[in-house]
Amino acid sequence: MSFIPYLAAAAAIAGLGLAFYFAKVVNAADEGTDVMKELAAAIREGSQAFLKQEYKWVGVFVAVMTVVIAIVLPYGMPYGAAAYLMGALFSSIAGVVGMQIATAANVRTANAAREGAAKALPLAFKGGAVMGFTVAGMGLLGVSLCYIFFVDIAGVDDAFSVLAAFGLGGSSIALFARIGGGIYTKAADVGADLVGKVEAGIPEDDPRNPATIADNVGDNVGDVAGMGADLFESYAGSIVAPIVLAALLFGGFVGQDAISGEISAIGEGGLLEGLYLFPLLIAALGMIASIIGALLVRGREGKSLSAQLHFGTNVAMLLTAVLSLAAGAFVFGDIDGVDNGLFLGLVIVLGLGVGYAIGFVSEYYTSDHYGPVKRLAGESQTGPATVIIGGIADGMISTVASVILIVGGLVGSYALGQAAFSPEFLASAGFVAEAGGLYAAALAAIGMLATTGAVVAVDAYGPISDNAGGIAEMAHLPPEVREVTDGLDSLGNTTAAVAKGFAIGSAALTALALFRSYTASVGLTLEGIDLVSVEVISGLFLGSMATFAFAALTMKSVGRAAQAMIVEVRRQFAEIPGLREGKPGVKPDSARCVEISTQASLKEMVIPGTLAIVLPLAVGFVSVQALGGLLAGALSTGFMLAIFMSNAGGAWDNAKKYIEAGNFGGKGSENHKAAVTGDTVGDPFKDTSGPAMNILIKVMTIVSLVFAPAFLGL
Amino acid sequence: MSFIPYLAAAAAIAGLGLAFYFAKVVNAADEGTDVMKELAAAIREGSQAFLKQEYKWVGVFVAVMTVVIAIVLPYGMPYGAAAYLMGALFSSIAGVVGMQIATAANVRTANAAREGAAKALPLAFKGGAVMGFTVAGMGLLGVSLCYIFFVDIAGVDDAFSVLAAFGLGGSSIALFARIGGGIYTKAADVGADLVGKVEAGIPEDDPRNPATIADNVGDNVGDVAGMGADLFESYAGSIVAPIVLAALLFGGFVGQDAISGEISAIGEGGLLEGLYLFPLLIAALGMIASIIGALLVRGREGKSLSAQLHFGTNVAMLLTAVLSLAAGAFVFGDIDGVDNGLFLGLVIVLGLGVGYAIGFVSEYYTSDHYGPVKRLAGESQTGPATVIIGGIADGMISTVASVILIVGGLVGSYALGQAAFSPEFLASAGFVAEAGGLYAAALAAIGMLATTGAVVAVDAYGPISDNAGGIAEMAHLPPEVREVTDGLDSLGNTTAAVAKGFAIGSAALTALALFRSYTASVGLTLEGIDLVSVEVISGLFLGSMATFAFAALTMKSVGRAAQAMIVEVRRQFAEIPGLREGKPGVKPDSARCVEISTQASLKEMVIPGTLAIVLPLAVGFVSVQALGGLLAGALSTGFMLAIFMSNAGGAWDNAKKYIEAGNFGGKGSENHKAAVTGDTVGDPFKDTSGPAMNILIKVMTIVSLVFAPAFLGL
Repeated sequence: MSFIPYLAAAAAIAGLGLAFYFAKVVNAADEGTDVMKELAAAIREGSQAFLKQEYKWVGVFVAVMTVVIAIVLPYGMPYGAAAYLMGALFSSIAGVVGMQIATAANVRTANAAREGAAKALPLAFKGGAVMGFTVAGMGLLGVSLCYIFFVDIAGVDDAFSVLAAFGLGGSSIALFARIGGGIYTKAADVGADLVGKVEAGIPEDDPRNPATIADNVGDNVGDVAGMGADLFESYAGSIVAPIVLAALLFGGFVGQDAISGEISAIGEGGLLEGLYLFPLLIAALGMIASIIGALLVRGREGKSLSAQLHFGTNVAMLLTAVLSLAAGAFVFGDIDGVDNGLFLGLVIVLGLGVGYAIGFVSEYYTSDHYGPVKRLAGESQTGPATVIIGGIADGMISTVASVILIVGGLVGSYALGQAAFSPEFLASAGFVAEAGGLYAAALAAIGMLATTGAVVAVDAYGPISDNAGGIAEMAHLPPEVREVTDGLDSLGNTTAAVAKGFAIGSAALTALALFRSYTASVGLTLEGIDLVSVEVISGLFLGSMATFAFAALTMKSVGRAAQAMIVEVRRQFAEIPGLREGKPGVKPDSARCVEISTQASLKEMVIPGTLAIVLPLAVGFVSVQALGGLLAGALSTGFMLAIFMSNAGGAWDNAKKYIEAGNFGGKGSENHKAAVTGDTVGDPFKDTSGPAMNILIKVMTIVSLVFAPAFLGL
Repeated sequence: MSFIPYLAAAAAIAGLGLAFYFAKVVNAADEGTDVMKELAAAIREGSQAFLKQEYKWVGVFVAVMTVVIAIVLPYGMPYGAAAYLMGALFSSIAGVVGMQIATAANVRTANAAREGAAKALPLAFKGGAVMGFTVAGMGLLGVSLCYIFFVDIAGVDDAFSVLAAFGLGGSSIALFARIGGGIYTKAADVGADLVGKVEAGIPEDDPRNPATIADNVGDNVGDVAGMGADLFESYAGSIVAPIVLAALLFGGFVGQDAISGEISAIGEGGLLEGLYLFPLLIAALGMIASIIGALLVRGREGKSLSAQLHFGTNVAMLLTAVLSLAAGAFVFGDIDGVDNGLFLGLVIVLGLGVGYAIGFVSEYYTSDHYGPVKRLAGESQTGPATVIIGGIADGMISTVASVILIVGGLVGSYALGQAAFSPEFLASAGFVAEAGGLYAAALAAIGMLATTGAVVAVDAYGPISDNAGGIAEMAHLPPEVREVTDGLDSLGNTTAAVAKGFAIGSAALTALALFRSYTASVGLTLEGIDLVSVEVISGLFLGSMATFAFAALTMKSVGRAAQAMIVEVRRQFAEIPGLREGKPGVKPDSARCVEISTQASLKEMVIPGTLAIVLPLAVGFVSVQALGGLLAGALSTGFMLAIFMSNAGGAWDNAKKYIEAGNFGGKGSENHKAAVTGDTVGDPFKDTSGPAMNILIKVMTIVSLVFAPAFLGL
């Protein structure tokens, strides 16, 4: 089995290779007219400027954390610090590459759209796939290199804590990328809309609007770079979590002799190695399946485009499911201690199913193909207030199905896990009797994320098409081109909902696994984190509160950053003669808007981002029990807020679009205005605060896990 | 010390006597003109019709629960069932009396307002005081009678479980009264506003609007009856909770001999009796202090009315604080096992302080005297969406200070409690070492609620003044009269904020105490409810989810009930000739609107109300551990939602009023319209879903506690 880490690294490199190949195809395509080139360059430069500024700030943060890790943690110097830096670096590389390709693919997609959707779709998809496979490739490469180096070669004592430090590196980048990007994109969007559409009365993406470029930059820094960093850390985290948990739950037995007569080898070639390598194998197989799936998406004429898009991801998922079952049987077939290896493979399939179903729930509540959004659109007839109340209620009620699915996945994987291990082994003294189930619950998250390459490809395809539409509009291309890009954009929506479901579902399961690892590393797995104690209950309240505070802070940040943008756009309309009227040759100072958005969002990301790191540290040094409560409170309440805010925001967005499609009075009616209010409220809900919640709960948990030895004074 | 239950009963009767005396004073006042009498009669009849219908439904529910308790619980027949029925009955009596007096005081206050505020204030306050002292009097009388009968006279084995059943009786009424009343009041309010003010363009409380009477009825059934039932159960619950907890934590020692040589008498005349009687004594002293405080509120000329109103409650609180310290020293002075009785008195003072501070936080975030509401009003300049986002963010951020206060109160009272008991005693084998602190944390809630009589007096005074204003408007009294009643209404706001802080703060602390009692009765106090286990984490998610679902269900109910009202009001305007124009002699069919509101709100209250009872039972029969997680999740997330929704709603309300006072363009401006949208969204937040959260978390906990023996199959 010792070939598995190398197989994983090879699969990662294959994924990166596919990304490289697709990038070449994209870059070879034509950028179109000079105006298009110019616009694309402005968007590209703005995006890169943001990323540069952001990495500058995040660089300082990462440097400080590296020093703290090196000094404070027993394994910090040099391994912990190195792994942390590596995680941060790999995530940053994925971010830079993703942003590069997205800002190259947008204009080329716009140009291809002039010849129809069949030409444009493959280009947009390939752009997304570069992002997807870079994220997944860098993530898997990082984890497998860490494994190979720290475990196999250096044989570091605390190898698994070091793996967690790699995860924390990725999380650090993701935290700031998600918050900063989320604030940027919505501040620019709201600023551009409020002054442009509402005050100046000019259409969206009109070149006269100084904030238009910033708005398009926002799509890239928020929906591409932010989302990519988010999924990098989700993906890496989901692989790392079960490995770390296995080390903590079962690791006490490494090097010991048999626990009972029947279980002979728990060390090398035995159970423990199987438990470590199984997650890596699943990730490797998922990568291969994703590559196959991605290669199946082509712009064939005569076949429905949406079917082609779904076909690729569905093949990737199905292949992963089948391969996982085989992998379970293969890895655990001959290992003492596990009676039914297939069950551990089934856990992966279960996780995949739960993620898919959560995605469907989100689709059900946010797509205008189903009742809730249609009814919500109808509530616009009694004004904006009823639209708001309706969306909030829908978002809140959507937590019910999602929670039932997560709990079902949790209980199901736990049961499968307990059934997979041999009862005598689980009953052997010295460790938690639930170890098998806990390990399996951690595995379920990989099921959702194994196909990250393919799933992110479709997810990133959305903003690329969106950007292409913006460029088409700004470059005054004929309206048919915009229609093509709009069509492309809407095609990806269902698959994007699946990606969202995977992101939030896996966040919950990964955070739970990390939470359990935390409890194990502070020695509370046997003692327990007792909800009856005042410390734990206090922690629970603080954790719930932290998620509300985080949501509030990020929403307020969007408001302030948007305000800065509004002031600037108003100033330009007032001070640049001929701008509003569209006098030929008069151009807005777009660069200034980009700069303002960049500065404002970076400034605003500091407080919520730092809070997410500092709060668990502050509580952990006071009481590890209270920190356990805090993590559990943040996890459960944060999950509700994430689902609630994302789905409410999505529902408002599509209720507006449903009215714009001609229902309930259509565009320009009073009902439409009411729906626009809902959509504006939903913007920070679904693109800033809601998605940031996923990261918040994982960052808080992984920080706690990594710093556990410091809390104990080790 | 055995006189204490009798003292408590006597204090309760004194409170009821004061209520009776005040009721006589109120009823002796003049009702004013014939039109006023007629309007008052319509409101009274509508309110009573609602209460009658509601009690019919709730009666069926209570009957079923009584039978279930009698059959399922070991102590159910006859004691548990009897206590449950008694709790329900006492709460209902308080509700009926409160409603009677509120619908009598409203018109008399309106009439007195014709002679100025100095005449009107005492009348409105006395009306509120009847309500306050009936609620507190019936609550304290019920608990002390239960104690005297079940503990002293009958010597029932499970006396303390029986006490919990009394609490559950009160909670059952409160649950439905809060939800039903909350839906009624907002459905009528929204229905009246949307058609009347917005569509027909007639002012608020205009007699032409068919929904005006229903709107005024709503104030009584929601803000008076609903709030009263809520506080009845909070008050009774806060006294019962520490008694039950003491029985469960320390009760194993009753009748046993000394644990160690030093602790000689833990039974009669000893520690256990002290722990049981102390809460009753505090409640008795609080009642006496409240009576004194209430008698100090008079309509003296030349003194600021607001000062007089505050003076009464402040005296009541200060007196309670001083008497509590003395009570701690008195009760525990000579008892072995407690070294510092004064510390347990200090816990009461701490609880009072925390409740007051939470009230101030709510005041800070919702009053236009402070920054947040002023800033929120300013956000109306960029339209309704920014007002909504701003209010949501403010409401969410307001959880921070509230949680810090609750956690401070929790940790502080825990520390005081542990310090109060002798270390040897706490270290003695056989029970939880934290018992002292846990008991003290339960005591803190009584600190907030001991002055319920005085606090509710001022709280109920608000809707009475509000109703008086409505009557003045409908009866075409001169505008000065309306000004007087509006002034009275706003005077009570600060004190009402304190009441709100007490209600939510005590809900959290009482629910925690009941939660701990639950864990003790299912035998988990020593074993713990371990957050690491899959069952508990699953429960935690389900509990968090339940609060979101409950909030969504109640909001949706308001929407549907309001819709029914809107349809009817539109129908009347369309079908009754001359109504809109105000043709003399043409009257709307107000009774029909009252009926519709009644039917709709009763129908809508069934599902969320039943859910609150059935969910914990369903989970409890599967796993008592999971139920522990569920309760903790509901408690922490529910507390956030309660604070968030109440404060966001309050902030929107006052931001609108701030604009109406002439800021940011004043009434009728675009900014005002944006603020009205916020206010409408806030209506179900602050008056339906938010307050219902307090009850939800307590009902779920007390149901679990009462049914604990059934879960265990005893």
